[in-house]
Amino acid sequence: MKLTQIAEILKLDEKILNDIDIKGLSSLKYAGSNELSYCDGSDKAQKFLEDSKAGVILITKELLNKMPPNSIPLVCENPHLNFAILSKFFAKKLIRDSKENLVDKSARIMPNVYIGNGVKIGKNTIIMPNSFIGDNVSIGDDCIIHPGVVIYNDTLIGNRCHLLANCVIGSDGFGYAHTKEGTHVKIYHNGNVILEDDVEIGACTTIDRGVFEPTIIRKCTKIDNLVQIAHNCDLGENCLIVSQVGLAGSTILGKNVTIGGQAGSGGHLSVGDFAQIAARTGISKDLAGFRAYAGHPIMDLKEWYKLQAKIIRFFKDKH
Amino acid sequence: MKLTQIAEILKLDEKILNDIDIKGLSSLKYAGSNELSYCDGSDKAQKFLEDSKAGVILITKELLNKMPPNSIPLVCENPHLNFAILSKFFAKKLIRDSKENLVDKSARIMPNVYIGNGVKIGKNTIIMPNSFIGDNVSIGDDCIIHPGVVIYNDTLIGNRCHLLANCVIGSDGFGYAHTKEGTHVKIYHNGNVILEDDVEIGACTTIDRGVFEPTIIRKCTKIDNLVQIAHNCDLGENCLIVSQVGLAGSTILGKNVTIGGQAGSGGHLSVGDFAQIAARTGISKDLAGFRAYAGHPIMDLKEWYKLQAKIIRFFKDKH
Amino acid sequence: MKLTQIAEILKLDEKILNDIDIKGLSSLKYAGSNELSYCDGSDKAQKFLEDSKAGVILITKELLNKMPPNSIPLVCENPHLNFAILSKFFAKKLIRDSKENLVDKSARIMPNVYIGNGVKIGKNTIIMPNSFIGDNVSIGDDCIIHPGVVIYNDTLIGNRCHLLANCVIGSDGFGYAHTKEGTHVKIYHNGNVILEDDVEIGACTTIDRGVFEPTIIRKCTKIDNLVQIAHNCDLGENCLIVSQVGLAGSTILGKNVTIGGQAGSGGHLSVGDFAQIAARTGISKDLAGFRAYAGHPIMDLKEWYKLQAKIIRFFKDKH
Repeated sequence: MKLTQIAEILKLDEKILNDIDIKGLSSLKYAGSNELSYCDGSDKAQKFLEDSKAGVILITKELLNKMPPNSIPLVCENPHLNFAILSKFFAKKLIRDSKENLVDKSARIMPNVYIGNGVKIGKNTIIMPNSFIGDNVSIGDDCIIHPGVVIYNDTLIGNRCHLLANCVIGSDGFGYAHTKEGTHVKIYHNGNVILEDDVEIGACTTIDRGVFEPTIIRKCTKIDNLVQIAHNCDLGENCLIVSQVGLAGSTILGKNVTIGGQAGSGGHLSVGDFAQIAARTGISKDLAGFRAYAGHPIMDLKEWYKLQAKIIRFFKDKH
Repeated sequence: MKLTQIAEILKLDEKILNDIDIKGLSSLKYAGSNELSYCDGSDKAQKFLEDSKAGVILITKELLNKMPPNSIPLVCENPHLNFAILSKFFAKKLIRDSKENLVDKSARIMPNVYIGNGVKIGKNTIIMPNSFIGDNVSIGDDCIIHPGVVIYNDTLIGNRCHLLANCVIGSDGFGYAHTKEGTHVKIYHNGNVILEDDVEIGACTTIDRGVFEPTIIRKCTKIDNLVQIAHNCDLGENCLIVSQVGLAGSTILGKNVTIGGQAGSGGHLSVGDFAQIAARTGISKDLAGFRAYAGHPIMDLKEWYKLQAKIIRFFKDKH
Repeated sequence: MKLTQIAEILKLDEKILNDIDIKGLSSLKYAGSNELSYCDGSDKAQKFLEDSKAGVILITKELLNKMPPNSIPLVCENPHLNFAILSKFFAKKLIRDSKENLVDKSARIMPNVYIGNGVKIGKNTIIMPNSFIGDNVSIGDDCIIHPGVVIYNDTLIGNRCHLLANCVIGSDGFGYAHTKEGTHVKIYHNGNVILEDDVEIGACTTIDRGVFEPTIIRKCTKIDNLVQIAHNCDLGENCLIVSQVGLAGSTILGKNVTIGGQAGSGGHLSVGDFAQIAARTGISKDLAGFRAYAGHPIMDLKEWYKLQAKIIRFFKDKH
């Protein structure tokens, strides 16, 4: 899409000197010279701004002086909102044009399965009834896709993965920009989900696709039922995520992290290797590895036990 | 159903002087002269009792003197239980007789979709595979019903709504009356669910139908994955409900309310416009708008942060 | 499978004197003379060890002297891990060979339903669209299996049960053994799920099958939406389990237990008859019946209210 068209959609009357062709949207960090990005003014965004290779950047007037030399600025009041508005126009199609499928002869596709276009299914993999396999999905060897599973387009699945009944892989994340009037504009998500080898996903668990980059579940990580993994999370190898855990957007887990049932994380946090998080913990800050944690607010597991005992003892005789 | 038949089903040997025909069940507030209601003895119910227009009211002996003048009393020990027993006989059928569907020519119905009777589907709406559209459902223009979605009968959906994979709209709420012996009698729900324009519902989210009146999600409200919205909730415009939130029956949200992940509400509570509820909060009382809250027990967000810091500081050196 | 083959799979170079034929895997408590079991060294396991009737027991060198007289020991470093490895070889097939189905003439099977082999469906039962009924499932009379429900093989369902949309009954539990390197080996679950008469299961609720013995939901127990019931739980009659509750493995509830929304239990705990657990409670120990509980850590409900009030009062004026 031509930059003049984009300016028109956004109702920006900026004069376009170099009407380049924009092929897609991306983050400041990853955008290339034919992609458009935005700077929301946060410290984190400003850090990536000066080295960005983006062809065009939506930016506020105040930050114009920090633009990288080879990018074209598109000045506006609310770059995040304008970016959300554009995301609809650059969204990948939910359902695509015909393209050949590569289903191995040894794979078994059971009744009432929907298989999209450009799908690859490996050796001995079983797709059980009433599942949905979106366009350009790739599934490795020896996987079992249980009944009622929904795998959205562009998801990549390794070998020996088990996806239990009615789980949902690759739905759009919960991302919106907000207008002055307080309404919400949906951000269409163009990232995907990657499940590496030997991953297991529980029944009715939901894993959202990334905004630009993938949401990743690495080798041999096991996820229980009714878990929520939001957009752009990256779970290391051999993690164990117990039922009803919720990980907010861009949570990064190291390897062999264990998270107990009904715990949750705030967004953009990282947890070190071999950390152990007790059930019902609220993860609200970055956590070092090789330690155990509990509570909300979160603290060292033993400290939490001690604190609770002290509180009960102290108040026992108080009126 | 004749009132004598009703008395027979409930094994009440009350003498019926005026054997009127009862067309349906409803609440004391909304029941008309050919409907039956009940008074459970609560203060709230008694408030509605005197102005009720219900044709017949199940009521205890103690409250007989408070009956409205034009209603017929049906005296029993446990009105709520008898009402639950009757609800089965007045339940709308899950699957109905044939009735014409009105599906716009521009709508796209993908494979393995079940469409009931009397269904309306608007322009450019897409119904993705393995979905279930119950009888008398109405879906507006430009909606996407993702794979595996279940929309129960009588649900009304506006324009530009997105229902993500495997969500369930309009299932019966969790309502039972209890016998003396401690068993539970199901209350069949005859209300429905209404989703207004621009509503988004996350994957594996469940929204229960109302008992009599509808459960309502108003314009531009966005609900994340794995959220539970119980019967008779009313969510105002532009609310944002993050993953794994649970709203108990008859929770009323104003407009632009934001609720963080894994928070929950008790039943019959109301939250004012622009209130912000932190993740993991337990909403246990009515909340004024334009303020932020956290904790369980719930309090002002800043107070909660202060309190937690004080607790940790105070007990740090105590043995 | 011959014991020599088993030793080969596990790479144990133990000399097999009596090469018996092993028909299946089971627990120390229930294993018979042609079954194999394991002792993980816990106090609980050791208690069952001396009376075990298992034909073969995976055991560490240290516990060899405690072997029951008629069982053959198979010595290894990590019995639980070796047991997990074997579980794959003894797993029941997810999809079986053809076997006649017994569907009553009055039952109604709606479109896009998958029905496996050896299935029994009783009188007047309705199976709604897009459901999956696995092999050897038995469903009683007057049940409604709502759209998108997944019932895995070997599940037994009584009369008058309602399974709401997209719930999942009988998926494999979240059970793994761990290697020295920190990877996880799946334990294939051979138990099943039993739902007795008049049970109701909410939308998107998940109930896992047992490892050996069944997961049981007893008569007239009602479970709300988005609830997780892990492997080997046993819920007594007339329990009420509100939305988003999570019960960890082997939780045992008495009869008429009520659990409020978003509460959770640790594994291997029991709760007495008529106990009432408030919403958001963390059940972390065995609980006596006929009492009410709240909090995390859990305590008497009234104590919890008092404690919270005291805490707030005490810290109000402290800086």
